[in-house]
Amino acid sequence: MVMDNSHGGFEAEKRPPIVIVGLGLIGGSMARDLAALGHEVHALDLDRDALEAAHAAGVICCPPRERAHFIWPRGAWVVLAMPVDAQVEFLERHRDHLNEAAFLTDVGSTKSAVIETAERLGLGERFVGGHPLAGDHRSGWHASRRGLFEGSRVFLSPTTDSTAMARERAVELWTSLGARTEFVTAATHDHQLSLTSHLPQFLSTALAVLLAEASISRDELGPGGLGMTRLAESSPSMWTAIGRQNAVHLAAALQAIEVQLQRLRSQLEEPNAAALRQTLDTGNAWANQRDP
Amino acid sequence: MVMDNSHGGFEAEKRPPIVIVGLGLIGGSMARDLAALGHEVHALDLDRDALEAAHAAGVICCPPRERAHFIWPRGAWVVLAMPVDAQVEFLERHRDHLNEAAFLTDVGSTKSAVIETAERLGLGERFVGGHPLAGDHRSGWHASRRGLFEGSRVFLSPTTDSTAMARERAVELWTSLGARTEFVTAATHDHQLSLTSHLPQFLSTALAVLLAEASISRDELGPGGLGMTRLAESSPSMWTAIGRQNAVHLAAALQAIEVQLQRLRSQLEEPNAAALRQTLDTGNAWANQRDP
Repeated sequence: MVMDNSHGGFEAEKRPPIVIVGLGLIGGSMARDLAALGHEVHALDLDRDALEAAHAAGVICCPPRERAHFIWPRGAWVVLAMPVDAQVEFLERHRDHLNEAAFLTDVGSTKSAVIETAERLGLGERFVGGHPLAGDHRSGWHASRRGLFEGSRVFLSPTTDSTAMARERAVELWTSLGARTEFVTAATHDHQLSLTSHLPQFLSTALAVLLAEASISRDELGPGGLGMTRLAESSPSMWTAIGRQNAVHLAAALQAIEVQLQRLRSQLEEPNAAALRQTLDTGNAWANQRDP
Repeated sequence: MVMDNSHGGFEAEKRPPIVIVGLGLIGGSMARDLAALGHEVHALDLDRDALEAAHAAGVICCPPRERAHFIWPRGAWVVLAMPVDAQVEFLERHRDHLNEAAFLTDVGSTKSAVIETAERLGLGERFVGGHPLAGDHRSGWHASRRGLFEGSRVFLSPTTDSTAMARERAVELWTSLGARTEFVTAATHDHQLSLTSHLPQFLSTALAVLLAEASISRDELGPGGLGMTRLAESSPSMWTAIGRQNAVHLAAALQAIEVQLQRLRSQLEEPNAAALRQTLDTGNAWANQRDP
């Protein structure tokens, strides 16, 4: 049943049913907000407990079913919110159902692979890729929450075939969750995110592994060191998939930071402190831009 | 005037006057807490505004004076809370006054240099180095606050000559601020902190410089990237001094993280994901230790 969410005397349009594939931090938070907005929310997840919990919380409409017996609602907007390495297989396996969806999107941290797959399977018209810059190192349904996307930035990457309607629906979906959308090509997205998101994640992991190998326990760290190792708590399976999908860009980003570190190392050993100070000044000036 | 801070019917001992040299985040926070505990707090700072503000706030006892006209209180406990590169010159210049102090300590992130200087100047008996794991990327009197050290860990590094009384006073000072103290040699401290604190700081700077050079502005980052670049906001002068003083250990730490990054880079490109996953698992297991 679709709830009537009238506001200010205007009758709201009938909201489309939503299918969320993967009730993790992102998918679960979308499900909570979309249900509250009056959408009928359906969900698929390999973890039956997540489905049970979401149903018990009144977020998803229907009790859990085996994936093979899932009933696809007509005219649904489908959101792929599983780890990126599971997207391709899902699109291939459910191609016929997805071909009847009114709109198809995803929330992955990499965009090229899923978009190529959607195009290859003839799903490109109804597909627009999405990537919200929201969430943290936590994961799973228990970490999901209302309002996660309020004020967040969301990158939208169309396929070569995305219709104008699909683009509009992508904007509508995220705007209704309080996010700001921005269109960007998949290639640009994957390059930029290798620097702004995937590199920070892998730096945190590298630091955690170094400290583990040095037999230093986490409670030896002060606030700064703790903050720099927090991302390492993120899901290893999720980040393995992201790293592999964006391997070329991420490897280049890792090489670029190695060069920065070598430069710092040589500046530490120079006869005077001027070069080191200049590097710290550059980083400081950049970091003191408005902290959103 | 020393206030009487009696508790539970026991009359408190007369609290020694305190001289804080440097009213930054750490020195200012110590001054606030120690004044509240009933110590008469004196302060030196190159920034007259900080002294004025601390005096106006009722934290320090006396109006600002030129450093040459500073009146050293008798039997004071002196805390060096300036950047580490200013410690040596200060100890040399004020050696005669410091030789009359009842106790002498510091709060710097490096311990070997200040301890060697104290020993060389014959101040070793009354000196015990200190380093609280507290604070964040902010600095200055305006960032200082009550209770900053509550529950924090403080490393204490004695000189070769530190008396038992000096050690006791170091513990007493920090315990009164709610911190937990732990004795460690200066060499062990500087090696360990190169990994747990100085390396995280320089990683954050390296990432900020890389993003600056890639012309990526800070509002392009999601929560993870923002968190990993926050330490780069720290004071460049303070961290230039720390880096230079701990250059040998820090350079080794930088080289060690470069090796970790090279390994991640090669794992990204391997035919299967197993090695990459294992690295992410190792970092995750370490980071999921109790988050203090």
